[in-house]
Order: sequence, then C-alpha cells, then structure tokens
Amino acid sequence: MDYDSFFKGALDDLRAQGNYRHFADLERHTGNFPQATHRSGTEERPVTIWCSNDYLGMGQHPKVLEAMHEALDRCGAGAGGTRNISGTTHDHVLLEAELADLHGKEAALLFTSGYVSNWAALGTLAAKIPDCVILSDALNHASMIEGMRHSRAQRVIWKHNDLADLEAHLQALPAGQPKIIAFESVYSMDGDIAPIAEICDLAEKYGAITYLDEVHAVGMYGPRGGGVAERDGVMDRVDIIQGTLGKAFGVVGGYITGSAEMVDFVRSFASGFIFTTALPPSVAAGAAASIKHLKQSSTERALQQQRVAELRAQLDQIGIPHIPNPSHIIPVMVGDPVKCKFISDQLMKTHGVYIQPINYPTVPKGTERLRITPSPVHSAKDVEHLVKALADLWSQCQLARMPQAAE
Amino acid sequence: MDYDSFFKGALDDLRAQGNYRHFADLERHTGNFPQATHRSGTEERPVTIWCSNDYLGMGQHPKVLEAMHEALDRCGAGAGGTRNISGTTHDHVLLEAELADLHGKEAALLFTSGYVSNWAALGTLAAKIPDCVILSDALNHASMIEGMRHSRAQRVIWKHNDLADLEAHLQALPAGQPKIIAFESVYSMDGDIAPIAEICDLAEKYGAITYLDEVHAVGMYGPRGGGVAERDGVMDRVDIIQGTLGKAFGVVGGYITGSAEMVDFVRSFASGFIFTTALPPSVAAGAAASIKHLKQSSTERALQQQRVAELRAQLDQIGIPHIPNPSHIIPVMVGDPVKCKFISDQLMKTHGVYIQPINYPTVPKGTERLRITPSPVHSAKDVEHLVKALADLWSQCQLARMPQAAE
Repeated sequence: MDYDSFFKGALDDLRAQGNYRHFADLERHTGNFPQATHRSGTEERPVTIWCSNDYLGMGQHPKVLEAMHEALDRCGAGAGGTRNISGTTHDHVLLEAELADLHGKEAALLFTSGYVSNWAALGTLAAKIPDCVILSDALNHASMIEGMRHSRAQRVIWKHNDLADLEAHLQALPAGQPKIIAFESVYSMDGDIAPIAEICDLAEKYGAITYLDEVHAVGMYGPRGGGVAERDGVMDRVDIIQGTLGKAFGVVGGYITGSAEMVDFVRSFASGFIFTTALPPSVAAGAAASIKHLKQSSTERALQQQRVAELRAQLDQIGIPHIPNPSHIIPVMVGDPVKCKFISDQLMKTHGVYIQPINYPTVPKGTERLRITPSPVHSAKDVEHLVKALADLWSQCQLARMPQAAE
Repeated sequence: MDYDSFFKGALDDLRAQGNYRHFADLERHTGNFPQATHRSGTEERPVTIWCSNDYLGMGQHPKVLEAMHEALDRCGAGAGGTRNISGTTHDHVLLEAELADLHGKEAALLFTSGYVSNWAALGTLAAKIPDCVILSDALNHASMIEGMRHSRAQRVIWKHNDLADLEAHLQALPAGQPKIIAFESVYSMDGDIAPIAEICDLAEKYGAITYLDEVHAVGMYGPRGGGVAERDGVMDRVDIIQGTLGKAFGVVGGYITGSAEMVDFVRSFASGFIFTTALPPSVAAGAAASIKHLKQSSTERALQQQRVAELRAQLDQIGIPHIPNPSHIIPVMVGDPVKCKFISDQLMKTHGVYIQPINYPTVPKGTERLRITPSPVHSAKDVEHLVKALADLWSQCQLARMPQAAE
C-alpha cells in the first residue's frame, strides 16, 4: 500500500468538501488581550481575537502570571513523572483541594486536559461499573463520546435537553441496572443550557448517577464561579462535576469532582490518568490562583455579561441573526460554509478581527456560524468595531437580516 | 445500585492485593534538583528523588525557565482555545518546526501529552487506514494499547523484541494488507532497547509502516538527542517517531513526527488532537528551549551516563541485583511486593531517599522492583549515599545478593 497517497487522498477529499482546517498563527499580548499578532508567511498584522475560550481574560491576570512565575522559580518546569512516580507536587495537592471546595465536593482529581478527564473518567466508570448503561445527551462533546465508545458499555442517546425523552429511556431500562446520565451545562456551539435540576430529579427517581460537564461554565456562573449547577443551587445533587482549567480559568488541564470514593476509584483505575506525566506545577499554581480569584471576584463575570448584552443588542439593531440563548456564547448564523469562511477571511484581512468559521462537521450543514465570545477584556469600542465590520460583510455577502432590523 | 459501595469495594480489593497507590506529595527545588521536600500530614522532610523521569534535570535548566518566564510575560498563561479556534500560537508553530528538525522529518504535531499522542495518532491511523492491522510489541505502553483498542483495528501481538516472531506474523498476513509495526525504543520498566534497524528491514520487506515510541530516549540518545533511532543512524527509515516533552526535555506534552501528509492526516482526523485546548505557549517555549539546548550540548547526556555507570558498578560491588540493560534505567530487583514497598518506605523515612516501588500490575508478579534513574544532577555523593542505604535495607530484609558480591 502507498500510505502517503492514501493520506493525501483523504486530505484532498477534506479540501474538496471545504472541511480542511487552516490554523491561524496568533500571539496574544499580555496586558493587552484580546489584541494579538497574526502571522501569515512573513507578514505580521494586529488583530482582535473574538473567539477565544479564555472567556474572562484570566490568561493575562497578574495573579495567575505571578503564581506561575513563582512556581517556576520555586520548583521548576515539569512535574518529572506520573502522579504515582515522583510527579505529585504540593501544587497538585493544593489545586485538587481548591477544586473540591469550588464544587462543594469531597474530592477532586486533575487530568492533563478536559478532554482526557471526560474520556478517562467516563470511560473508566462506564467500563468498570458492572452492566452499566450511559444515557448520553445527543449533543455531548467528542471527549465524552470517545470515552463512552472506549468503555464498550451500553449507550442510550437521548434527544438534546429533552427531559421527556430522557425519562422515556430511563423508564425502558431495568430498574436495577446501573445508569449514568451524562450531559453538559452550557453547550459550546449553540450556547444553550441544560435543565440540571430536572435531570437530577429524574436521576434520583430512576437510581442513576449524574455526570455533568461544566467546561464552558466554570468560573463563569454562580457566585463563586462554580458553574451553572452552583448558580442553580443544585451542585450537591450532581454526583460528578467535570470541568476545565483551560477556558475561563485561563490556563490548561481538566478535572472531576465528587465523592471521595468515586474520585479515588477513577484515580486508581483510569489508564489515562495513571500512565501520563502530571501537569507542570506552575500550571497547577496558576490555575489555583485563577480559581481563588474568581471565587471572590464577580467583577470579571459582571463585565463579561455586560459585553455579551451589548453585542447582542447591537446585532439585533442591525438585524444580524444570532441564537438567542441564555449563555455567554453568541452564535452568529451564516448558514453557508463558503460565505462563513469568506466572512471570517475578510474580517481578518480587512477589519483586523479574528473569528474562526465553524462549519460542518462541528455543526450541522446549513447552520454554519461565527461563534463569538465577548469577554471583559473587550472594550465597548471593540464591540462597536466588530458590529460595523459584520454589517459591512453582511451587505457584501447579501445575507438575510432579521425582520426586526432597524437599519 | 449503591454506587459508592461498589467503588469502596473495588478500592478495598486493591488494598487487600497491595496494589493501592499512595501518592507522595513532593516539591523539587529549582537550582537544587534532585533535592525535594516531602510532605506527609503536617510533617515536611528533605528527600533526594531517585525515580524522576526528568532524566537530565532540564526542568530546572536556566534556559528552559527563562523561555517560560519570557513567554508568560509576552503572551500569557493559557493558549485560550483548540489549535483550530484561536489556540495556535507562534510558540506552537516554532516548537513543531524544532521537533521536525530534531528527527529529520518533514513535519511534527504537538499533543497535550505523550499519552494522548500515542492514543490519538495510533488510534486514528489504525482506524482510518482501510483494513489496517497493527503489529504491536508485547510490552508496548498503555497509551499505545488504548489507542489500538480504540481503533477497533485488527491487532497482532508479537513477542517482545523478538524479530523472528515479528517476521512470522508479517509472513502470515496478506501481502497487500496495510500494516503498522508499533514498538518502543527504550522500554520503561526493563530498560531494554529494540533492534530498530532490523525491525525497519522487516517493515520494508513486508510493506509495513513503522511507529516508534521514543519517549524514554528523546534528548538522551544520539548526538543531537534525537533518540535511539538517531544514535543508530536509522531515523530516516522510521515512518513515525513519537516522543514526549515531559521526560528528558523536562516540561510536558507529546508529539509525532513524520511525512507532511501523515502528520496532516492525523492533524485533520484525530479527535484527541482536534477537540482539546492547546498547550500553554510558555510550555511550548520551554520545550523548544530545552530541545535546542540538548541538540547542541552533550554535557548532560555524558554526565548522566557516567552516573548510571557509577551506580551500576557500586551495586555490582555489593551484589545488589539489577537488570543489566543497555539504557539509563536501572531496575533494582526485589521480587516481592511487600518487601519492595517496605524498602521504599524505609528509604524515605530513614535515608531521605525517594524511590517509588514498582509492583504488579505495572510489572509481572515476582519481578517487583525499584526503578532508579540517575541523572546529571545527582552527585557522586548522592550515589554513594543511595548505595549505602540499599545495602543496609538489603541486609535488613534478608534479600539475596548476586554471587559476585564483594561484601
């Protein structure tokens, strides 16, 4: 077999379908987020990033950077081993305590990424609990899907955020069979939010445990940034809360929190936790500083929500369609892959704005979009500039506007 | 089902089998590796770490720390997104170029960890290449095994480092069927080294591609630290070289290198690469600085090899059994799980030495061991102290010595 020809053919197919990914080479500037330098060949241009998951700009927060600098000087770059073989540093221990406290749980466990935490935790629980069935929301993230697939456990997909469908599936399963309901709080691409309390009601009624992915919500919702479950006052009813340190907390890494026994079980049996080098102590220290800060400060959350509201209002004024969800994620709907890519390219070239186009297979065909994430580090002037740029491109592409358009 | 009782039961079983893992809470001190503080409850004690995978002490190298500090100040803590959505920073681009150059390949691709790089790359290649069969060395790492398992591709296990067995399996497979031979260069627990050239001969003869895990070898072997394949002059014959930034390079992260088409293929199809937050730019910058340094400097490698030779010679003098392998890993054989744990505990308590015991299931029963990794930051005095402590404990535990013992 000619392997490289096979690879080339598959890549050519991707290109023909318009699904080939080009990565933008970017460099944000500390103290000046969301401004960045975009490099293309030898050219360098300033851009404003409007699609970062560093939702609160914590990646440049002085407390986070100071904690990371301090840890580097104190104990070096890497952890030097797996958690079991010389890689558990005091910074890991402290961060896990911070995370357990954030979610009001007995224990927490760190992973190298949110992806790995979902894959390893859900994969291990589903594989090891005898005869376990997972009830998985239809729009769950790839990392959960791969974890479930890996477990080889029985899987039931319920309609996205549909309580009646979930209950129908629960009812149809044997009462004594162990069950995990796996879902997210804020869904990344549509920005809609799950009815967590009602899902917990069903879990209790049918003897299931709940596994909640709060990666787009931790740091962002609730008085201490504990996520939507904290905001809704139901953290104690969720069995396993999974989160990330790489979005609102501004660093990198993933985790689960829950009962001491559950966490110890995953710690003891998950291959993806056991056989991998621990996160650098400086990453753990930076994440702990970020969490601590956002437990006490709501300034960033308030300003972020203000920017989100401003952008939504200005988009409404000129009739640019966006999904009216209750979260901080603003999906501006283009509905055409070629135009979506074109608008993204023009934003970068002509307007100094970077928003990655989101096309199939990340979202269904016909729902191609620009996923915009306003943050407290965007200014009112940034919002104005973005809206003007979108208005120009909407006209240029002859895209439909919403009927209530004032323009 | 009472889930927590199930978890507790499984943990009790682990405890009863002596396989429950306790993590040592450690903090190394920059500028003073391998010295560390061990915390247990409120107690703090100084220890010398003898089982780190920061093989060359690069985790405290001034160039690495300086690069990380600089990147933190320049562009902040986290990457802020997946590689496709705002998370590709210039530091990632530069690091991938550095890695491709290290292995003399067209391209390289970064992952969040070595574990993820094996799981995602091998899993994707085996799943996507039609009718692919993987020929896997019997002692391959958990991350490769999980990747293969995930792919659902046909898998053939060949006897560890056994060329005749590998050839027999290759011969038995249809000539036209796509094949991947997956193996490591240095095996972690026994420290033995694969016959890479001869495996490449077989791959060429039978039309297979080769996937080589060099995580325990990159930075350590070859004139530029390219690994055993570089040392043996066969880097160009290996199709895919996988490595880590978390061992000899002293930071964290994993990667693959190979042809531009193969790397682009994995970049485009691997879920574990696509749907995860990129490594922090400071991690990428630190790793690049470490690689650059070890490409030009052999001082660390030479001193490390000297310490390995010194320790081996002194163990031989007093008849403490260790596997006589050709690598830098010294497995001191205890052969009893209880004694292995006891010796480790005593080393920590009485001698200020930290070496994690390696018991089943990481190694087969009856081969329980202390896996010792001397480094250039260990002094001749450290070696002497370790050998004396082992001699005391060997007598205390009435463990057999090798016949050639001088003592």
